[in-house]
Parts: sequence; C-alpha cells; structure tokens
Amino acid sequence: MSEKLILITNDDSVNAKGIRSLIQTAKQFGRVVVVAPDKAQSGMGHAITINHPLRLHRVDLFDGIESYACSGTPVDCVKLAIYEVLKCKPDLLLSGINHGENTSTNVLYSGTMSAAIEGAMEGIPSIGFSLADYASDADFSHCEFYLKKIIHQTLMSGLSANTCLNVNIPKLSSAKIKGIRVCTQAHAFWADRFDKRLDQFGNPYFWLTGDFAEANPKENTDLEALKNGYVSIVPTHFDLTNYESIKAIEDWKL
Amino acid sequence: MSEKLILITNDDSVNAKGIRSLIQTAKQFGRVVVVAPDKAQSGMGHAITINHPLRLHRVDLFDGIESYACSGTPVDCVKLAIYEVLKCKPDLLLSGINHGENTSTNVLYSGTMSAAIEGAMEGIPSIGFSLADYASDADFSHCEFYLKKIIHQTLMSGLSANTCLNVNIPKLSSAKIKGIRVCTQAHAFWADRFDKRLDQFGNPYFWLTGDFAEANPKENTDLEALKNGYVSIVPTHFDLTNYESIKAIEDWKL
Repeated sequence: MSEKLILITNDDSVNAKGIRSLIQTAKQFGRVVVVAPDKAQSGMGHAITINHPLRLHRVDLFDGIESYACSGTPVDCVKLAIYEVLKCKPDLLLSGINHGENTSTNVLYSGTMSAAIEGAMEGIPSIGFSLADYASDADFSHCEFYLKKIIHQTLMSGLSANTCLNVNIPKLSSAKIKGIRVCTQAHAFWADRFDKRLDQFGNPYFWLTGDFAEANPKENTDLEALKNGYVSIVPTHFDLTNYESIKAIEDWKL
Repeated sequence: MSEKLILITNDDSVNAKGIRSLIQTAKQFGRVVVVAPDKAQSGMGHAITINHPLRLHRVDLFDGIESYACSGTPVDCVKLAIYEVLKCKPDLLLSGINHGENTSTNVLYSGTMSAAIEGAMEGIPSIGFSLADYASDADFSHCEFYLKKIIHQTLMSGLSANTCLNVNIPKLSSAKIKGIRVCTQAHAFWADRFDKRLDQFGNPYFWLTGDFAEANPKENTDLEALKNGYVSIVPTHFDLTNYESIKAIEDWKL
C-alpha cells in the first residue's frame, strides 16, 4: 500500500495546541501536510474569502512536517491546500482537534467542521475532531486513543459518498470515557443574547454571548452521548434538502 | 389578523439594489424592519462574529422603513435583529434578493441563505431569495410576481419545523419564465482554482476563482429547474446528519 497523504487543518489557527495533538497522531498513518489559518477563525462556518486575496506562508512549527499558515478561513485553507499546495486530492483530510465541542447545530457555525464538509464536497474522506474543552491549554492526551481507532477504520472502510464525520470527545480522563457512539445531530440552539456596552464616545457596541440549550431532546444525539461520557460520531453531509417537506410545498397553489 | 412583523436582511449589504426590491414587495404584507450588513458579506456562509464587537447604525434609506446597518455577517444581523432591535421573533424573515444564484451547494457558502437558515433555527418562517444575475444593477422587476406568491403562501400555510425556503429566480423576462418548481439541492461543486499573482515585493497572493459544475446530474434539482427557465424552491433544513450512513459506521469495530 502506498503511503497515505493526509491534509490537516483547523479553525483555532496553526498555533493552537489541538492541531499539534492531531498531527502527532496523524503522522503515524502517512505523510502529513498542514495548511491552517494564521489566526483564530472560530465561528467562521463555511465562509470563503472572495473580496480579498489570500496569503500563504510556509512555517516550521511541527518538527519538519510541511506546514503553511493561511490568511483565510478554514474552508479557504482546504481549497488552497488542494489546488495550490498539494495540487492533488489527499487520501484523508483531518480538521481539529477543536478547542471546544461541535455537537448539534454548532456544526453550522464551526470552521473546524466546515473544513471537513468542504473535504467531503471534494470527495475526500474527511473527519472533524473536537474536544469538549475551550481552554487554550486543554489536555488532549486522552484523545489519541480514539483518533487512532477512527482514523484507522476510516482508511480501511472509507466513508459514504458526500459524507464526513463529526467526532466529539468528552473532557474526561480515559478511564471515565465509556466508549464510542454513532449518533444524530441534536437539535440544540444558542439562546443568544448580546452584552451591550458603551465605547469612549458613548456609542453602543455588542458582544455576542448566550447559553446553549436543547430544544427537543431526542434519543441518541451527539449532545446526549457527550453528556453521558461517550465519544460521539455523526455522519455529516451537505445536502440540506428537507425531502419530507417537498410534498407539502408541491401542494401549494403556486 | 394582526399586522405581520417582517424582518429583512441580505448579504450584499444594506446598499444593494436587491434588498430594495425585496422591501418594496414585503411591505405589502406587514410592517418591515431591516437589519442588513453595512458592507458586502457574500460568501460568509454561517459565520458569526465572536472575536470582535458588533456595531449597529440606524439608517434612513427606504422611505421611512425602520432600518439598521450592522458591521457583522448576515447571521449576526439576524441575531442582533431578534435580540436587540425587535426584542421578539418576527412573523417572517426574508433574506435577499441576492445578486447571483444560490442553487446547489452554494447554499453552504451563501450569507443570504445562512441568514434564512438562522431564522429557521429560531423557529421563524424564513425565505432566502436569489436572482441568477450577479450584476450590481441587475433587473429585479420580474421577481415581485413570484415573491408575492411565495410570501403569501408561506404566511398562509407556514413551513415545516426547522425548515426554510431557498428560492432562485432565473434571469429571464416574466414572459419566458415557465413557472415554479419544488426541487432538491443539486450536487454541483466549484472546480476551484486560484489566480496566483505577485505583489510589489515579489511575494505571492491568491484570488479564489473557478467554475461551477454538476457532479452527478439528478432529476428535479434546483440547478436543472433554473437552467430550464423555472423558479426553484428547495425546502432547506439544518440537520446535516446522513441518516443512511449510521448503520454502516455502527458496524465498524470501534
């Protein structure tokens, strides 16, 4: 079997602790190339940069691993990696390990998961990994065991067409993690609010904040798995059609 | 029936021609409030602003319609509108009319559609409208007929839970448009490439460009409908779970 080519990106930037953990594990499976944002890009979702040009700088951060810092979003990183750096599609795309969970509807806001979804759009087996710990110095040491299992199996079995994996790992010691569950995306939402402040001229500005709450708790969701001490895997695709609604709208008098 | 409260946003900015067309039509259905980006936010997808504060400025652009320009993304506009401007959920959220089509996987990159999806996440009947014409001076005059039909029917019938509408209108005169079709999201992709240039110091920078091509043409997609002269409606939700893949992954040895 020829050596696998593995593209790594994230949304917390090339300087985050989480990407370093992911590289350490991934390099056991093949040749790793890193193209990741040069600054934090959390919450950038599937944004692409079309009104500004992009920059790409070679960096030497990971013991000789070919690595680039990109001025754009996580999705920009994937596109630049495929079309300008690798000039081919890698065998595997890994994104993360994100500092903070990406369960439920967070998959839409998450740059980490959008990079994995972009990989799926390119036909590349892709996985987004997140740890349920937002701290910049989060402890990722227990993640390797699960990453290895999931990466190995993905390389062996492949993934369904147009589908990537959204993997969330609890903030628990290895001994306390109960196992891995294949789940559905929970329907939880941010109950948003804004912290309104006044600047030095008395003009208002707003910080987005809020709490995350499950609207209609269902069985076997990623949120429930994580709460109960399991690693969650959600097979994630990019067809947003609600097929069940088509008939009702066809019955409209249009 | 009490007067409907209608929130309008877009991604082309409060100064775009398309939002003006949408306001003209929407105000026939109730009280309109506009919260839209203060600059072009195309391609911003579901991005939210978490590392910078947001600004919101009252503007007087639309003949007495209460309107605000927001420094953030389309999704930020929706959140700020609900939680700081209206302080309640509107009866209807309309996004657009976008300058350029948002068929197929463009729904993921589109700020216009992400605003509508955010509305669906908030439980608000939401519709994103796009015209297949990128020109800043595009002719939107033929859109009103279709907007009125679709807005009227949405207010009458409501939408399925967690679902918004993605409406695309061809760049054709009214006489040439054949009707309205309820469709699925096409699986078309950007065959990306980058235009690599050198700056004044000889350092490279990259502009994202590329062509849009359908991977596996299917029947009854939005892309096909638009090509054939129909207005397309895709019921769009935010559950990205690929339910059909769950069993295969459960069979993995994890």
